[in-house]
This record gives sequence, C-alpha cells and structure tokens, in this order.
Amino acid sequence: MLRLEHRRFVLFAGIAAGLALVGNKMRGEDPVSSANAQSQQAAAPPVPAGAREVPSRMIPVPDTVSPEMQAIIAQPPDLDWNRNVPKTPDEWKAEVQEAAHGVMAGLPKLREALGVTVQPTTIGGVKAFLVTPKVVPSRNRNRVLLHLHGGVRVYNPGEAGTREAILLAGFGGFKVISVDYRMPPDFPYPAALDDAVAVYRDLLKTNKAKNVGIFGTSAGGSLILTTLLRAKMEHLPMPGAIAPGTPTADLTKTGDTLFTNEMVDNSLVTQDGFIRATALLYANGHDLKDPLISPVYGDMHGFPPAILTSGTRDLYLSNTVRVHRKLRAAGVEAVLQLWEGQSHAQYNRDIKAPETREYNDEIARFFDLQLGR
Amino acid sequence: MLRLEHRRFVLFAGIAAGLALVGNKMRGEDPVSSANAQSQQAAAPPVPAGAREVPSRMIPVPDTVSPEMQAIIAQPPDLDWNRNVPKTPDEWKAEVQEAAHGVMAGLPKLREALGVTVQPTTIGGVKAFLVTPKVVPSRNRNRVLLHLHGGVRVYNPGEAGTREAILLAGFGGFKVISVDYRMPPDFPYPAALDDAVAVYRDLLKTNKAKNVGIFGTSAGGSLILTTLLRAKMEHLPMPGAIAPGTPTADLTKTGDTLFTNEMVDNSLVTQDGFIRATALLYANGHDLKDPLISPVYGDMHGFPPAILTSGTRDLYLSNTVRVHRKLRAAGVEAVLQLWEGQSHAQYNRDIKAPETREYNDEIARFFDLQLGR
Repeated sequence: MLRLEHRRFVLFAGIAAGLALVGNKMRGEDPVSSANAQSQQAAAPPVPAGAREVPSRMIPVPDTVSPEMQAIIAQPPDLDWNRNVPKTPDEWKAEVQEAAHGVMAGLPKLREALGVTVQPTTIGGVKAFLVTPKVVPSRNRNRVLLHLHGGVRVYNPGEAGTREAILLAGFGGFKVISVDYRMPPDFPYPAALDDAVAVYRDLLKTNKAKNVGIFGTSAGGSLILTTLLRAKMEHLPMPGAIAPGTPTADLTKTGDTLFTNEMVDNSLVTQDGFIRATALLYANGHDLKDPLISPVYGDMHGFPPAILTSGTRDLYLSNTVRVHRKLRAAGVEAVLQLWEGQSHAQYNRDIKAPETREYNDEIARFFDLQLGR
Repeated sequence: MLRLEHRRFVLFAGIAAGLALVGNKMRGEDPVSSANAQSQQAAAPPVPAGAREVPSRMIPVPDTVSPEMQAIIAQPPDLDWNRNVPKTPDEWKAEVQEAAHGVMAGLPKLREALGVTVQPTTIGGVKAFLVTPKVVPSRNRNRVLLHLHGGVRVYNPGEAGTREAILLAGFGGFKVISVDYRMPPDFPYPAALDDAVAVYRDLLKTNKAKNVGIFGTSAGGSLILTTLLRAKMEHLPMPGAIAPGTPTADLTKTGDTLFTNEMVDNSLVTQDGFIRATALLYANGHDLKDPLISPVYGDMHGFPPAILTSGTRDLYLSNTVRVHRKLRAAGVEAVLQLWEGQSHAQYNRDIKAPETREYNDEIARFFDLQLGR
C-alpha cells in the first residue's frame, strides 16, 4: 500500500525524492523481465538491462480519423513481409520493376485528377522529372521544389518516383523537380547522394538558394538531410526550407519506436529482415552509422527551417523525433506534425483521405512562409 | 508471392489501386483477430471490427536519451496501479493528502536550486501562489504566466501544485501565478474551471491579455483549453500564448495511443480503473464528452498560439495530437514537440535530466516569441 501511494505521488508530482523510492525496481529487477530472460536464455540472446515485456493486446481502429484513413489503419501487417527477400541483383531488379509497373499504372489518373504534367529531363547530368501544376500562383513563380522520392533506397525508379511530387505540385501549386537518383543493386551509396547534390548544385545556377525547398518521405527524407550535410561540406548555400517526412535518419535499429511500434506499424512492420536487407544493399559495406548514410549522426547546425512529419504508429516516429530535437538543439527553426493512428508514410497513401489534403496543405503553407520569392 | 509483392508496392508507393488489392483483408477478416474474437466470445465482449492483436514483446530502454531519462524509462509500470482505488471522500482525501506531503517535502530544495520564492495570495477570490524568480529579465517585466497544475483533477492541492511553476519561473525567468483551484471530492466540476477563469479575469485588470501566457501539464493542460473555451463564451480576450503539456483533452478512453501505448506508458499505464475513477469523480455526473470537461470536442477557432508537448510512449500522445490537429484546422499557430521514450509528463520529472532543462527552455522561448511586452 505504501509503495502504491509512492508510485501515485511520483506520477502526479514527479519529484526526485519519489524517484529514489522506486529506484530499486529498476534495470533487471523487474520480475516479468527477469523471468522472461531466464526462460529465453537457451534460445535467444539475454534481455538487455531495463528491457521489459509488454503483454499482447488488441488495438482497435481509432474512430478519431477519417473513414478513408480507418480503412488504411484496419489493414493487418503482412506477416509474409520478411519472406522471399531478394538475394541476387536480378531478383532485386525483378521485384523493383514489378512494383514500379504497379505504381505507374496509377499515375495517369492521379496526374489528371490534380491537373499536373510530368516531363522527363536531365539536370546536372542526372535524370529527373519536371512536375508542373496547371496554374503556378504568382507567389510561387520564382520558387522551385526539389523532390527526393522514398522507397527504402531501392524502389521507385523512373516515373514511379514522381507520385509524391504530383501530389504537392497539384495541392500546393509549386513547380517540382523530382530526382530520378541512381539506386542499388547497380548503384549503391553514394550514387543517390551524388545525384541529389548534383541536381541541387545545378538548380543554384538559376535559382536563389532561399527560393528552393526540398521535400521527400522516408528514404527521401533521409536523403534530404544527407544532401544538406554534403552541401555544407562543399560550401553550397542552404536551401530556403526542407520537409523531411518520417525520414530514415538512422538505418540501424535504434530509437524507442523501432521497438514500441514494431508490429503496431502495419506499413514497415519491423526494421528486421527485409528493411535491414535494403539498408545493407544501399550501404554496400560502409558503416550504417556514417552521417552521410544515417544523417541523425551528422552536424545539423546551419540547417534551414524544417517541417517534419510522422504518425502515432510510425515505426520511424523516433527517427523523426530525434531529428526534430537535434535540429532544435542546433538552433534550427523546426516544427513537427504528427498524424493520429498512422503508420509509416500513410499521410499520402490515399488521395481521397482528408488527411492527405491536410498534410499537403501544411507542407505547402510551410514552404510559402519560409521560401523567398 | 503475388500478394507479398503487392503489399510491398503498396508500402513504397501507396497508390490507391494497390489499396484495393489488399482491401479484402480489412475489418474482421484478419485471421488473428477473428480467432481471438471467437476464443474470447464466452468471457469477453466481441472484438470491434478492424481491431487486431499485437503480440507481446520486449521493449528495451532506449539509448537515445540521457542517463537520467533512461533511469525513469527503466521503471516498470506499477501493476498495483488499479488496486485500492479510494471509494469514499475520506479515502480520496487521505490519499491526496499523503501524496501532497510527499511532494511538498521536495519543494524547498527545488526552490533553492532554482532561486525561486513562493508566496500564497488570493486573486479574484481564488487561492493562488506567486512564484517569482530571483531575477526577472527586462523583457519579461510586463509579462505574467498563469499556471494550472496537473494531478488528474484530484491531486496536488495547495503548495503541492506549485512544482511545475517553480521550474518554469526558475528556468525561464518569468513571474508565475499558480492557481490553487478547488478539486473533488468536495468541489467537482465546474469548480476548478470557475476558479481558473476567475483568476484569468482578474489578471486582465492589470495586464494586457497579449502579455499573459498560460501553461500546465496533463489535467492542467486540459484546464487551459477549457478555460479558453469559457473565456470565449464570456467574451474575454484570449491570452498571448498557451503551453498545454500532454493535455487530458478527452476524459474518455478515445484515441489511438490510449490503446497502442497502454502498458507501454509506465506513468499513467492505462485509462481504465484508477484514472477513470478520477474522471468520474471530477465530472460528477456530467457528460465526459462535454467540451468544458473534454475540450477536444470544443470549438478552438480564435485560440492563441500554442506549444503542445508529449512523448513517444505517452498514453495521451493522441490527446496531444488531436488537439494539435484541431488547432491547426482552426487556423491557429500551434507547434508540437515530442520527447523520445518518455511516458506521460516525464519531461519535468527529474530536474537533473537535460531533457527537463530543454523542455523548459523551449516553453520559455515560445512564450518569449509570442507574448507582448
């Protein structure tokens, strides 16, 4: 009874003295964890100090999101996720190509719905797409957005990478250049980074840096951050603003939600297995914690204003939070938005969901506030 | 194999066409959920459509936070949490008093460490405390912060409610008025709200509304929001800015993280049982979804700039996110900050944790940017 009350008063008041009273329950002395550690000793590695077991439980589909988003959240994670991970370059290419064909099948309708045209081009020697809305408002006439697509550093080659660019061009009225950066298995790190920097460098010839924004999701969000780290090394000016959506800022399994949201996230599901295979394929023997691969380990002083996005079920919520705190600690104006119930990168999943419109409106508004004219 | 690939391309590209292909796995057709629903049919209510089971798993203490914060995160949730819930007014008072004594024992050291003095006073007929730092910087001389303490609407009477005010007065250099609002069991809703509004109304006699900020955590964060809803009804001007920390914006078990972070949060643990008892004690027969009790259901148009705070393990992360989205949808300048690995309201738990300093610096900076001089 005494301990119970101490826990309650620690909760409600949080005084340091109270903490000391319960401190003896810490680290390995939790009976649940200890029992589990013993029973698993033969088969599994020992449980790290302080780890504890969360029991299984039912998670309902929240009624605090739109019906369209409820349908996305209601999908169970694919338990086949980690099976049939491609082993050879040819197997990777076959999987990537099939996925790309599927994506591209949906693009004509999307472009038509949003009144957006997409034209292939080459910028700074790198393949890219000009993504243009029917009307560019006068305030955006001297602005351009650079788009770095997602797809765990392996997927969405060619036109398949333009989907997110079409959404922001259409919803936000921006001219967008979507970079068709090179990817593994043929072109591992640092090819994608070289390409992104080359396009950015070329854009600076005809645009004020302050008038350029960069956006992208997941691997694309990570590539924004590594592009800025490289731009700093090469003494290029910073762009006007960036919008990294749930960036893969750390390619290792590090951070709180990589564990707490494992199997809760129905999109990425887990960092183990398939996702880890893509990280290793990209890094090609380089240290996964190299700041130019996992940018959360880089120096973010001097970065431009940033808007970061994640969801309450996102496996990479901690990646997003760690980048936000790192930017704030470096004195950067960085804001964070989070979406109820969403797993990794679901804010752009369904063009009919009001959350998708709202997400793109927020990003467009941020660029409008931050970019030069 | 085909389904696997379709799932992967849905993930990486998220096209609507892809969604339709997996749509038949939605809502009640998940084999795990269905089996569980059947096996539980005799003993438990049926599983809601779209709910799914997350298996038990180990969650380690993240190494991405300070050692002080790791010690807080390493504490297991108290499994006795819901036992011995007070049943009578006298039992509630005894529990609240014992907790208050515990809190107050730590306050002299805290005041000394931060150079803050605390004096009882009465404002607008309501008991309060003047919380004053040793030095008030010139930019804060014509500013005052109103503090509404937390403690699930029942705890932290009298001086026990001043802890958070001492922290922000000391770290931020602000004059603070901490309201000792009336609480159940003797004074249920709307006594606390009446008191908060009365103090705010009185402050407006001698301060420009734009120079007043309001802050508070948990129940205090919720009371900020209901105070503004009432201020609007009574045609009082809005304050300059607000800082609701992980506000109990909904007193019902509604929102995604009320389920996904159940038992993950080692502070509140669960909305069921004890917490629900405090909500019912406060509401005293009123509808828990009344906007003046659960402010997320209120109209937030015209609210002042807001900074909201939560943590990745916070049971009330969804409360925080829902308020943030609601404010943004109402056109309010609202920012969000999230803390890695933290459960409910742990950002102020240990004065020695660098996260505590950083949290208070962020709130002070936001008020400095937003308040008039």
